[in-house]
Amino acid sequence: MSTVTIIGSGMMGSALTWPLRDNNHEVRLVGTHLDRDIIQSIKATRRHPKLDREMPKGVISYFDTQIEDAVKHADCILSGVSSFGIEWFAGIMNKYLDPDVPILSVTKGLVEEEKGTLTIIPEALNDLLTKDRKGKFSINAIGGPCISHELATRRHTWVVFCGKDKSTLNNLRSLFSSDYYHIRLSNDVIGVEVCAALKNAYALGVGLIVGEFNQIGANGKAKMYNPQAALFAQSCFEIDKFLNILGGDRSNVQWLPGSGDLYVTVFGGRTVQLGTLLGEGKTINEALKIMEGETLESIEIITRVSNALPKLSSKGILNLNDFPLMNHLNQIINHNAPVNIPWNAFFHDVFI
Amino acid sequence: MSTVTIIGSGMMGSALTWPLRDNNHEVRLVGTHLDRDIIQSIKATRRHPKLDREMPKGVISYFDTQIEDAVKHADCILSGVSSFGIEWFAGIMNKYLDPDVPILSVTKGLVEEEKGTLTIIPEALNDLLTKDRKGKFSINAIGGPCISHELATRRHTWVVFCGKDKSTLNNLRSLFSSDYYHIRLSNDVIGVEVCAALKNAYALGVGLIVGEFNQIGANGKAKMYNPQAALFAQSCFEIDKFLNILGGDRSNVQWLPGSGDLYVTVFGGRTVQLGTLLGEGKTINEALKIMEGETLESIEIITRVSNALPKLSSKGILNLNDFPLMNHLNQIINHNAPVNIPWNAFFHDVFI
Repeated sequence: MSTVTIIGSGMMGSALTWPLRDNNHEVRLVGTHLDRDIIQSIKATRRHPKLDREMPKGVISYFDTQIEDAVKHADCILSGVSSFGIEWFAGIMNKYLDPDVPILSVTKGLVEEEKGTLTIIPEALNDLLTKDRKGKFSINAIGGPCISHELATRRHTWVVFCGKDKSTLNNLRSLFSSDYYHIRLSNDVIGVEVCAALKNAYALGVGLIVGEFNQIGANGKAKMYNPQAALFAQSCFEIDKFLNILGGDRSNVQWLPGSGDLYVTVFGGRTVQLGTLLGEGKTINEALKIMEGETLESIEIITRVSNALPKLSSKGILNLNDFPLMNHLNQIINHNAPVNIPWNAFFHDVFI
Repeated sequence: MSTVTIIGSGMMGSALTWPLRDNNHEVRLVGTHLDRDIIQSIKATRRHPKLDREMPKGVISYFDTQIEDAVKHADCILSGVSSFGIEWFAGIMNKYLDPDVPILSVTKGLVEEEKGTLTIIPEALNDLLTKDRKGKFSINAIGGPCISHELATRRHTWVVFCGKDKSTLNNLRSLFSSDYYHIRLSNDVIGVEVCAALKNAYALGVGLIVGEFNQIGANGKAKMYNPQAALFAQSCFEIDKFLNILGGDRSNVQWLPGSGDLYVTVFGGRTVQLGTLLGEGKTINEALKIMEGETLESIEIITRVSNALPKLSSKGILNLNDFPLMNHLNQIINHNAPVNIPWNAFFHDVFI
């Protein structure tokens, strides 16, 4: 039996308590300063208000003010904060991290660097540590496909754990692996993290068609899966281009997390809901008003990537023409453009 | 204006008359001996009984007995027969084919060869011609994602045309391309055709979970997309392994047709319906009875591939452990096995 401390009691951090408790580990769930209502609820009734179910028996919950107790003698620190929370995580955890205790991050996103490049979360976390602490920790990460509600009801789920060290990864897998939570390992941290981050952008793209269909409806037996599939495939095409640029292995796009994570996110809630609203013809401001209070990783990733694209292009690192869908998503999200998918700009001929 | 003769008036062959007529070509639609009711209906009322809508104005329909007239001076012959019909197509068309007239096949499938290998449809068509005719024709093919009902109502659709000769492909594209029917070109015929064929097998796999969900239902907010996504990704993984063995380019799996065609087929009707019935707990015989009268390419492709797998394995060409999902589909379809997805056999660790 080991001890795992989860920092961030949002849906994904909390859902990971299921396999951990099923494996009989001591599980400490720490809310951030934004999670106090959640921890209050769990302490009072064991109910997680966002997962809308009782937490597994034996999960010990902590407020952010109790973090020092929660991390004592932990065998693994899991970061379950959103991409908006990594500065907070690094700031508060800087002094508690232990070089012998691996970190596992379930945060999804990419971070813009001043020089115009994009960095994956494990790198960004390291960069946020104080000078004397940088480079001292094993920062690993989880890639999907995983909807938290489903993990919390023990649906079969296949994910990727990635990190630089094989034996650390094997140890992490042995902590979390169960008969429903299946884990493959990869040392291609960039490949996994880029897929995990970008799927939130591109699932919004597929959602545009869901919204258009809501407006137009079926025509006889014809729904709108041909255009959805074209957007799905173009998404994989553009993710692959990013992987090539940022240095990840293409096999990640092909199966897990790539296509699998994109697939699940198309059905997974907030991201596709925002795309649907836009596809129905709402402006970005109208859509954001409807979704007020939700954490929207999709907006953040589209914006960050789109800020970086022209800088990377001007350095000759990429060709903007390879990213017509990302560009259109950015026009919709950040420049109030109406949905007008650039179909003819997709794909290209391949003669090998 | 050119003349295109379509052999086979099933749903896909018939749906392709939309972009062709929108481009003002002369379009001749020839029913096979199994399509006489369809041609009768089109001649009488312009209505296609399976597409359940009126054919575009100006499509000229022919019975199989009128095939000689239909192919005269055609600029392109499109084969719209199912994989069960390629012997018929080759037999009847052998004498009418003209080396200067490209063939375009929309048939999906793989053919078992006696020596234990699998052949793509364009090769199989060529092999079925008489000795003096073999190797004389340009046989090209179309890969999805494309649901015929949607093409017939002009939904945006992106497909791949593949063949050996770039200028022939460009000519074919100029015949069919429209503002809603988008075409990329590839000379990787094996890559495109293997993806197009296998998606019918693997979409059935994803359907198993749809069926299981129908039985079990939601648990709070938890549906069953994590397991669907895992099966989707494992399908891409296995398709990629087949591509490597049969000699296709991996980029086909990643985007178009690969992941796109699998995506559309998961929503596309008969294949996933069969998987759903099996996932609901019906035996293969019960499921087949319910679907009596439907053309089930999925059964055929699972069976053909599964017959070839052990032969290819015994030659050292592949490792059977790379295909746990295909093996389970075969057990269900051909050996009456209950659904019991081999989750732990999926994927593998990758250290680069």
